[in-house]
Amino acid sequence: MDLDSKAIAIDVMGADRGPGEVIEGVKFALKQDPQISSLTLVGIQSEIETHLKKCGIFGNPRLTISPASEIIGMDEKPTHGIKKKDSSMIRCLDLLKSQACAAMVSCGNTGSLMAGATVKLRLMPGLERPALSTVIPSKDHLFILLDVGANPETTPKQLMHNAILGSNHCQIELGIQKPKIGLLTIGTEEGKGTERIQETHKYLKSLGHLINYIGLIEGYHVFEKDVDVVVCDGFVGNILIKTCESLFHMLKELFKEELTANPVRKLGAVLSMRAFKAIKHKFNPDRYSAAPLLGVNGIVLKAHGSSNSTGIMNAILTAQKMLNQNMNKHILCAVAEANQIIKDKEGEPA
Amino acid sequence: MDLDSKAIAIDVMGADRGPGEVIEGVKFALKQDPQISSLTLVGIQSEIETHLKKCGIFGNPRLTISPASEIIGMDEKPTHGIKKKDSSMIRCLDLLKSQACAAMVSCGNTGSLMAGATVKLRLMPGLERPALSTVIPSKDHLFILLDVGANPETTPKQLMHNAILGSNHCQIELGIQKPKIGLLTIGTEEGKGTERIQETHKYLKSLGHLINYIGLIEGYHVFEKDVDVVVCDGFVGNILIKTCESLFHMLKELFKEELTANPVRKLGAVLSMRAFKAIKHKFNPDRYSAAPLLGVNGIVLKAHGSSNSTGIMNAILTAQKMLNQNMNKHILCAVAEANQIIKDKEGEPA
Repeated sequence: MDLDSKAIAIDVMGADRGPGEVIEGVKFALKQDPQISSLTLVGIQSEIETHLKKCGIFGNPRLTISPASEIIGMDEKPTHGIKKKDSSMIRCLDLLKSQACAAMVSCGNTGSLMAGATVKLRLMPGLERPALSTVIPSKDHLFILLDVGANPETTPKQLMHNAILGSNHCQIELGIQKPKIGLLTIGTEEGKGTERIQETHKYLKSLGHLINYIGLIEGYHVFEKDVDVVVCDGFVGNILIKTCESLFHMLKELFKEELTANPVRKLGAVLSMRAFKAIKHKFNPDRYSAAPLLGVNGIVLKAHGSSNSTGIMNAILTAQKMLNQNMNKHILCAVAEANQIIKDKEGEPA
Repeated sequence: MDLDSKAIAIDVMGADRGPGEVIEGVKFALKQDPQISSLTLVGIQSEIETHLKKCGIFGNPRLTISPASEIIGMDEKPTHGIKKKDSSMIRCLDLLKSQACAAMVSCGNTGSLMAGATVKLRLMPGLERPALSTVIPSKDHLFILLDVGANPETTPKQLMHNAILGSNHCQIELGIQKPKIGLLTIGTEEGKGTERIQETHKYLKSLGHLINYIGLIEGYHVFEKDVDVVVCDGFVGNILIKTCESLFHMLKELFKEELTANPVRKLGAVLSMRAFKAIKHKFNPDRYSAAPLLGVNGIVLKAHGSSNSTGIMNAILTAQKMLNQNMNKHILCAVAEANQIIKDKEGEPA
């Protein structure tokens, strides 16, 4: 896993706002972080060149273009998407597979990226499934929720792996040295919840210094400050994040309606405008970088489909941080140690 | 299931605001609905009498007192709670078991109520597990979410039963004739999600006129107007409702902080006060009655621990509506029919 290349492949196509926005994000990232040594821009060459010229970074020695003629659509089925061999996304994965690049950023179709990455890059030794991890803002802090959809049916061992993956993601992305890890369940007394959760709880308790496991948590705790990493399976996590978005969207509409219902309320809303802007800014998805697909050989970051150039820049900066700090190497070691601990506990020959 | 008694047992003890609030709710309910023929107030007799006198309804011919000396605490473990045989909650369940009452309302410990009701009342024929159902407000409509915690590990057949239970609850509580039923999953294409969901989807599609099944839904749809009943297992539902409460609480705190950050924002907030009040009112839990534990022999309603007298009144009115409209009889017939359909489908002898 110690790759010589620190190049990052950028899937320039397939973003909602078009390749221009992606290239602008590339420009911002180059300016922001001098440690970025090499970005490989993957997509339709003529379009990439046009936008590089527009942004004034055509010919930048830190940039390479790698042509790809196809685009995977946002609504395309993953089984169909991953068959598009000359698509920008699949070409990015090929670059990681051949170790020409060590990381990639894509705004494209999530299902195709998860399927493609798992098939092309395969999992790191010791892991059984990947996990899609995400940063979520709360009032005064950020936290990590995983898995949000890569692995809907999870064994206790896989849930334990999610905890390790999330802990490593949190350390790098949020800079928290010993992230507090909570296992999401219903009822926090021992013996409550499902058998799968009880078994996972036992595993996590046995990991000692490997992670900072604080125990079982309930839905009530998710947005509270006492948990840095919320661990769950991809079924629960995906439903949870989408429902929260749905609730958030509903509330936004409701506020809009109520605050414009008459001239007095409208005036009040204008005077409090900066409060609403501050809240909107806090939950702006472009601030919180992209969701890494953890567990595969390579750094794979899924940025929001509707990312703006700031979102793209943040995703590239995160990819670079993950490379600088050797995230996957740390994961590899921790997973091996954890697997050994539970193997020993279960009395099987090591 | 055709009980002669239409009496409703009221667990007067164990509410956060004390027995006085419950008795006031009883008074409001009696005034509101002349169809309420008999309420049995269960708890410490002297306390009940004191509050009845305070409310001016002592000696009301529609009221009976049934003494109980113990109270199950809010934080008591269910296994411990249900052993308190002379507690107001367990005495209520006894009244249902002996058919002296047909329904009950309690603000007490949810775990004890679920465990006690399942053990004492047992499930209606054809059902395998109870489900706790709840009404949730959205922008311009209300919807039902179930199960929110009674049955964390659910088979496809049990999930199908949840759909039937929720449909019946929705008809009575929200007055929707053909509630639109959605099965909560990740990814709505056929073949996505878990095997359990795919199997349930097949079952629900085969039920024909029995319920108005609209298909698979994702988290995105939960707060949207196109679904009246969101069906899931008790693990997902419990985490979902508690996380939404956690998000909602966090946002409330955030708005408070931002809107009071300086005098201009404060003035704005004062002018828009009625908008915030309208939103707060929309999400006031006391408006949406109590959560029925569906599937048991009898009507069991769990009101919020912190219910005020309006909340108690609404719970009693809902219990009366469920009795008037023979909810459990309808459930019994629908479940029998559904079980027959899937039995036939699977080619087993009927």
